[in-house]
Amino acid sequence: MIKKTLTSRRFVKPSYSYLIEKKRDGGEFTQEEIRYIIDSTLDGEIPEHQLAALAMAIYFQGMSAQETAILTEEMMLSGEVVDLSHIAKPKIDKYSTGGVGDKTALVLLPLAVAAGIVVPMMCGEDQDFEISSLHKLGAVPGFNGDLEIDDFVKQLEKVGGAFAKQSPELAPADARLYELRRQTGTIPSLPLITGSVLSKKLAEGSEGLVIDVKWGNGSFIKDLEQAKQLARSMTRVGRSMKRRCVALVTDMNQPLGDTVGTALELREAIQLLKGEGPEDMQELILKLGMEIVRLAGVAGSTLSAKQTVERHIQDGSALEKLKEIVAAQGGDTSYIDDPSKFPEAKHIRKLPAPKRGYVHTINAAMIARGVHLLGAGPDAKGKIDYAVGVSEIKKVGTQVKQGEPLMMIHYNDESKLEQALEYFKNAYRLAPKRPNPPTLVVERVA
Amino acid sequence: MIKKTLTSRRFVKPSYSYLIEKKRDGGEFTQEEIRYIIDSTLDGEIPEHQLAALAMAIYFQGMSAQETAILTEEMMLSGEVVDLSHIAKPKIDKYSTGGVGDKTALVLLPLAVAAGIVVPMMCGEDQDFEISSLHKLGAVPGFNGDLEIDDFVKQLEKVGGAFAKQSPELAPADARLYELRRQTGTIPSLPLITGSVLSKKLAEGSEGLVIDVKWGNGSFIKDLEQAKQLARSMTRVGRSMKRRCVALVTDMNQPLGDTVGTALELREAIQLLKGEGPEDMQELILKLGMEIVRLAGVAGSTLSAKQTVERHIQDGSALEKLKEIVAAQGGDTSYIDDPSKFPEAKHIRKLPAPKRGYVHTINAAMIARGVHLLGAGPDAKGKIDYAVGVSEIKKVGTQVKQGEPLMMIHYNDESKLEQALEYFKNAYRLAPKRPNPPTLVVERVA
Repeated sequence: MIKKTLTSRRFVKPSYSYLIEKKRDGGEFTQEEIRYIIDSTLDGEIPEHQLAALAMAIYFQGMSAQETAILTEEMMLSGEVVDLSHIAKPKIDKYSTGGVGDKTALVLLPLAVAAGIVVPMMCGEDQDFEISSLHKLGAVPGFNGDLEIDDFVKQLEKVGGAFAKQSPELAPADARLYELRRQTGTIPSLPLITGSVLSKKLAEGSEGLVIDVKWGNGSFIKDLEQAKQLARSMTRVGRSMKRRCVALVTDMNQPLGDTVGTALELREAIQLLKGEGPEDMQELILKLGMEIVRLAGVAGSTLSAKQTVERHIQDGSALEKLKEIVAAQGGDTSYIDDPSKFPEAKHIRKLPAPKRGYVHTINAAMIARGVHLLGAGPDAKGKIDYAVGVSEIKKVGTQVKQGEPLMMIHYNDESKLEQALEYFKNAYRLAPKRPNPPTLVVERVA
Repeated sequence: MIKKTLTSRRFVKPSYSYLIEKKRDGGEFTQEEIRYIIDSTLDGEIPEHQLAALAMAIYFQGMSAQETAILTEEMMLSGEVVDLSHIAKPKIDKYSTGGVGDKTALVLLPLAVAAGIVVPMMCGEDQDFEISSLHKLGAVPGFNGDLEIDDFVKQLEKVGGAFAKQSPELAPADARLYELRRQTGTIPSLPLITGSVLSKKLAEGSEGLVIDVKWGNGSFIKDLEQAKQLARSMTRVGRSMKRRCVALVTDMNQPLGDTVGTALELREAIQLLKGEGPEDMQELILKLGMEIVRLAGVAGSTLSAKQTVERHIQDGSALEKLKEIVAAQGGDTSYIDDPSKFPEAKHIRKLPAPKRGYVHTINAAMIARGVHLLGAGPDAKGKIDYAVGVSEIKKVGTQVKQGEPLMMIHYNDESKLEQALEYFKNAYRLAPKRPNPPTLVVERVA
């Protein structure tokens, strides 16, 4: 690990009001000023009301590419930076802005590791619409995602990958800033998102990063243009920090795959690792997987990248690697071998189509809310009901008859069903004409 | 006094984050929302970081005329509202955004009272560039500006006017918001300025308000267009609160009158009340005075308004009224009769013109800083040196020979002179050509 070293400088500390006013009036911060802001955030010197006003000024005035890069680096240097230089293999990380039904990480991580890549990925917390990979893997008895940094590095050395909880020792300045942003309407600031995400990801020790920026009703980024801007902001900062970086802007205007939940999604991930499962997930895994193996230098051409991804699924090595990782973290791999061992919900019922027609739109955020309501997200005590969720989701463009299931609802608690049903019903819009199918991968930013 | 009465309403309290995001995205607050924000500000319910983010969002997104009016009213209703309805005379107040060398209030208040108008004016704190009327009157031995609201009202009944310190019982929600704005770069928000100023002024019980909005290098409003906007915002809100309102936008690109200080300005005010003194101050007093007597209904036509103002100076009744007010507040009026009794500084020296030419510009803020440095503003212990300041200020457009005094500097403490001189020197720009004279009253907004 490299510890932050503050060199003494002839920098006269400005007042926080001065810094707020500078940004308010569209000024550009110097490296010293950003370092001072991050130091003050880390040690709690800057009062919260001044940090909040500064964040809102940044929301409105933005930050230049250089400011954003400096912000990211200073936030990264506010804590531990994992050093993996002693591992000879290519080290590539993957990040997604988060979506509904997104089980990509569960598939891509073992796949990349099977292809000879070390993936030093730490899993973030649940966001609004997202169930974290760790909560999904919690369905496997014995599995422990709570690794100390040393154990994380050891597992990377031995197995090549881990599903580990984000360490609070990485980019700790971000923790305070993020909590404040959550309360002050300043989450959607592109430079602040970039700094928050990349300061943590780049502290994890990778040489390259594949980013999945999702846009749509199931993402916190509702606007395609904003998603493209974020993709550009992130890859630019990643490059300026000497990391290879590629971003794909992808569709999140309906749930990904056929399931939303924990064990339900884990089952779908196992299917995908066997080369089965829903088409959209297969496509997304192929596209993101190709980026990972090319960024790692494991494959050169597009064709060889495609073959590399497909081979590690077809020969079962990716699935085998998932078992190896789960086993290394104490999990009972018999559940991976036989997914029918995962608990089933007491009740499974259909959501009937109210009329015939085509699925025109699905509000993915509403599906996520309904699924959370059924108990798929941690409750006040942190308990998760691994059996609940939805499956067999009819996707946009599917034709349905009246009464035909739009999806199957898995639930244990009758009392929660009614409200969840409201969300599910309202999530679907049917129309007489077939809509244009959504484009899954909208743009590639490198 | 009218106390705020909160009627119960079917209003579901929104989260503060929701309110911040609403304003961030350009939304318009309802009356209930603004009331909730002000109530929460008053009782300290809203955390400072959320209030700060909200203030910055308001800075960038503004507020509609209606929102600003509601904000002003709710802030006013957060405290005591002085009721002067039992006084039969017209009740007109005057407000200035503050400037350097501005001794208008010292002249206009007794003048208006002499004309049969009650002036329920409370004096604000010193601003950046301003010495408050109370600090100037502090040069009169015995004078006490610290009146309770009851005593304030009694003096208005008896004498017609008072120089009283702003009561903390008026618009207390503003006190917390203002202190927060000072620290978070949100002072220059027009709707927040309007709300802050008018909530206090309109709580003082007047039926009408004459506003002097100053623009220029000696005002906190540097931009003429912004000054005009503020004048419009204030008169609009005043009218919507059923007050007669007129605003003049006036020049503050050089000190007003010939003096800057405390006793020095008080002497100039006494001169002006005798119909003597510098032309720009005479003009400003005439223009503002005419607005006051017309708003009060004491004079109808422009001509009669002019005659009314001039008469109360010529017949000595305005000066007599100043003595009456000062006496009512415990001050030794022999100082008004004989201004030579005011303390003189130990040293008086000239600021020599570095070359011949015309005074092209004077940075009034720099003059103010130099004068404060000499001790004219309260020091850390609140002590004021009443003798110090500058006099015989050569104004913009004046021709000077090399070495001729640009002004006279009155000082007691040699050690402070050098730095003050730097300010004074740097405040003056001389040029070979005569500049266009500044326009004192730029616009009238009614």
